[in-house]
Amino acid sequence: MSATGFKPHGSIPAWFASEEGMLLIGGCGAASLVDEAGDTPLFVYDMAVVEAQIRHFRDVMPPDLLLHYAIKANPYAPLLERMVPLVDGFDIASGGELTMALAAGQAADHISFAGPGKRDDEIAAAIAAGVTLNLESEGEAMRALAIASRTGVTARLVVRVNPNFDLRGSGMRMGGGARPFGVDADRAAALARHLIDAGADWRGWHIFAGSQALDPLALIETQAATIALAASLSEAVGATPPLVNLGGGFGLPYFPGDARLDIRPIGVALGEALATRPPVLRDSRFALELGRWLVGEAGVYLTRVVDVKDSQGERFVVVDGGLHHQLAASGNFGTVVRRNYPIALANRFDSPPADAPVTVVGCLCTPLDRLGDRVALPPVEVGDLVALFLAGAYGATASPTAFLGHPPPCEMLVG
Amino acid sequence: MSATGFKPHGSIPAWFASEEGMLLIGGCGAASLVDEAGDTPLFVYDMAVVEAQIRHFRDVMPPDLLLHYAIKANPYAPLLERMVPLVDGFDIASGGELTMALAAGQAADHISFAGPGKRDDEIAAAIAAGVTLNLESEGEAMRALAIASRTGVTARLVVRVNPNFDLRGSGMRMGGGARPFGVDADRAAALARHLIDAGADWRGWHIFAGSQALDPLALIETQAATIALAASLSEAVGATPPLVNLGGGFGLPYFPGDARLDIRPIGVALGEALATRPPVLRDSRFALELGRWLVGEAGVYLTRVVDVKDSQGERFVVVDGGLHHQLAASGNFGTVVRRNYPIALANRFDSPPADAPVTVVGCLCTPLDRLGDRVALPPVEVGDLVALFLAGAYGATASPTAFLGHPPPCEMLVG
Repeated sequence: MSATGFKPHGSIPAWFASEEGMLLIGGCGAASLVDEAGDTPLFVYDMAVVEAQIRHFRDVMPPDLLLHYAIKANPYAPLLERMVPLVDGFDIASGGELTMALAAGQAADHISFAGPGKRDDEIAAAIAAGVTLNLESEGEAMRALAIASRTGVTARLVVRVNPNFDLRGSGMRMGGGARPFGVDADRAAALARHLIDAGADWRGWHIFAGSQALDPLALIETQAATIALAASLSEAVGATPPLVNLGGGFGLPYFPGDARLDIRPIGVALGEALATRPPVLRDSRFALELGRWLVGEAGVYLTRVVDVKDSQGERFVVVDGGLHHQLAASGNFGTVVRRNYPIALANRFDSPPADAPVTVVGCLCTPLDRLGDRVALPPVEVGDLVALFLAGAYGATASPTAFLGHPPPCEMLVG
Repeated sequence: MSATGFKPHGSIPAWFASEEGMLLIGGCGAASLVDEAGDTPLFVYDMAVVEAQIRHFRDVMPPDLLLHYAIKANPYAPLLERMVPLVDGFDIASGGELTMALAAGQAADHISFAGPGKRDDEIAAAIAAGVTLNLESEGEAMRALAIASRTGVTARLVVRVNPNFDLRGSGMRMGGGARPFGVDADRAAALARHLIDAGADWRGWHIFAGSQALDPLALIETQAATIALAASLSEAVGATPPLVNLGGGFGLPYFPGDARLDIRPIGVALGEALATRPPVLRDSRFALELGRWLVGEAGVYLTRVVDVKDSQGERFVVVDGGLHHQLAASGNFGTVVRRNYPIALANRFDSPPADAPVTVVGCLCTPLDRLGDRVALPPVEVGDLVALFLAGAYGATASPTAFLGHPPPCEMLVG
């Protein structure tokens, strides 16, 4: 906290501008978007931002690299439909997401299904649809083979590997220790061999070491280690994997002091690594699987101020949204120390901040429901619109929307 | 962690028994309940446990004390309907909960509506229905008076007070500092006076200092301070409040080492405090507002084992449920250090634990989805049923049920 009691918030993405003080999203004023949607709270997703992110990815990454969208980050149906022609595949995590991916028009052979707790009915649906299963364990592999054999369909199977390294500095470690995800690296080749011998269509490896990393060097190191691991596993199998899914891990700068990830050096390094890859991987395709990084910055959460109140010298701004839509922004999802997401007053976007900080709280009757802690905002009035940025990933669907009986948020796609 | 790597879990409530190894809930075997519900994951709520809790409350609390149910803890419709005749009122926190309370058959004049972010449409609906509004600020009071005046209805209004003390040892502090809840104690009397002068039906005070406390002495102290505060505020107003809502705060023993709250000394102390209350409160009624404590222990979450896997010497039990139904049990809702909720294998309830611990993870593809960390369970097989206890409050509705596209949990009421 500074001398005046302010706490910093994350940086608002540089491309957001205003017109007559009103925040523009996809060229439209925030208040007009709320009118069009009919109500607050409202998630607005700007497809132009997603497209720019994908263009940037294609520009700097090796030309043959495949880009998968992990739809768990944001499965809003209109967005999924727009994503189909822009990416090379969808990664899904449940039978429900399988239904969504197919409904969006994604081809089954461009869908892969990962996740540690696949039920038999989900495995059966995926095999019947022709979707690739990323196997998380030997037990799951046996269930998948049994189901495929029962139904007479050749299963498309990838072995997910629990690597013997993790993604340094990642927000969530998913390798480098005992993990519920994938098969330990020292058993992965034996499983792949078994799948091939059992007549399955072995599609390759899925190696996901962590997520939400902001250090290019850490990602470069992890990708190099991942390619090396895929090569040594493939040599042990004695077969070339059609696909190596290198995982994801590209993070977003949610918090004060976070720098936006520069993916250009990652593209250069990955290009070199692929150019010099071991012969066993010569005919393999490689994919990166991204969710948050593709869509997170495209989203803005707009919520209306319903009350401004003072308590013991602190000013509280109470909005009609809250942690039931933005659990992560409240600091209650996977973070130990709460920090402020980027936040602004949408309808006085270019006004200077007031002299004193305000605490922005949601409408829920719990002290956990805090969206901005002692932040700098212009003077706030009832009826104003608060904007929370980086709301395009893990927002509506990663929050307890039914909590306290509030309605679900509105969502809309622009651009 | 003990020498053998086990971590403790919270105590399973003493009344749970088994028959031929199968956990009984409300006299029925867990597996039969799953068959009846049709699928896992399943929340089972045993109404007999709720009724016993209410009976115990009535037995030890002063005879005139009113008992309100805070329906946010569990708004499952069949449970709400059963609660109506058992308690003296429902406390709600949104327009959605207003609809649920009325649909359950609760009379409007037995419903009070608290919460810091009430929208105009929610206030209007509450006033039109004849529900009492617990006002959280002067601004909200002005909006309520304006809406009442516009519609020609006399509003039933309580002033929620932000007390100048908190509930010692409570899991969530809701008083004793700058808070989004209620009006600071030093301004509360002026607001009540204004409401009376404006012709509203002033119903009294709502003073809620904290929740989830397990120390009877802390609750006794807080209730005494609350009554004293209500008295001094009422004297300042120069009027007797029809109702003093003393808040709640009764906690449940979720974690290892937690002792079950003994409410008998609280009843004795509250009886004495009420018997000697200041004259200005002589004709007031008093209420306790409980949610979690009434229903939490009545719930069991049943989830089926879909995989058992070993990774680097650790055993993982993967279930078809997870943090999308049990966010708090995963340690991701308002807790800093993750600890284990009470957990058991429902279908081998009386079997001795295996020699090594197991980590129970949910089906979500995130390392946050951990329901039991290195717990002692009997040897686990695919198809077994894991039971998480104390699942009756803040379960399904306080979790991100749409996360990763999984279906909502089944719910059923027995007893």
